Amino acid sequence: MMTEQPIGLAKWHEFVNTQNLHVLADALADDVLFRSPAIWKPKAGKAMTMLYLRSAVRVFEDFTYHRQFFGDNAVVLEFSARVGQLSVKGVDIIQFNAEGLIADFEVMVRPANGLQALVSAMAQQLASADASNIER
Amino acid sequence: MMTEQPIGLAKWHEFVNTQNLHVLADALADDVLFRSPAIWKPKAGKAMTMLYLRSAVRVFEDFTYHRQFFGDNAVVLEFSARVGQLSVKGVDIIQFNAEGLIADFEVMVRPANGLQALVSAMAQQLASADASNIER
Repeated sequence: MMTEQPIGLAKWHEFVNTQNLHVLADALADDVLFRSPAIWKPKAGKAMTMLYLRSAVRVFEDFTYHRQFFGDNAVVLEFSARVGQLSVKGVDIIQFNAEGLIADFEVMVRPANGLQALVSAMAQQLASADASNIER
Repeated sequence: MMTEQPIGLAKWHEFVNTQNLHVLADALADDVLFRSPAIWKPKAGKAMTMLYLRSAVRVFEDFTYHRQFFGDNAVVLEFSARVGQLSVKGVDIIQFNAEGLIADFEVMVRPANGLQALVSAMAQQLASADASNIER
């Protein structure tokens, strides 16, 4: 069980509120893994994870966190959002490393039509992302 | 935060291990809601929830729980499983009522191809379920 809030969790909430990419960079471990709701194979590293997380934050509308669940140096954050006309619910499953930085960020979304809309919207967002702004 | 394990959680784990439907019935509130990973609208009531949960337990192969997360009279149970040839990961998000019975059971699954395989397998399982065994 977590006894205090990891720095990565505080920074993550600050990023969601501000969309400040420097804050997101400070939240993530260099070797972070990002596990998408759509694809099995994780994306590895800070640059790829930042690309996906900043795109996701732009794609979701009316994004709101609800219940919070605590594990062993890990949290689950429940959210609701819209993707276009569709309502989705989801969870962010965030594992922290010993320094409190985000080591593993997994997202699951329901229902199936909302997930499909998210996949389409993310593909567009990723295609239009300015890769030169991403730390490599 | 939960200070002791709700009776509904102990009964749920017992059901997963034994597939004893009487145990499942004891875990659920009469007005339980089941939220499928595929469909937005929840299924209402003990009979419908039992139908979906017992079908899910039959459809998943190599079903294994991993991390556990605790909320306000609620838990998130992370699992992995196979559906046919495909690997899936998922969460059971379980909210308990004041009596410790399961009031809301929500499932999310990733990735997208695993969810689609689950939808197909569940449709077959539900079609073959012997409705006469389900408490109405």
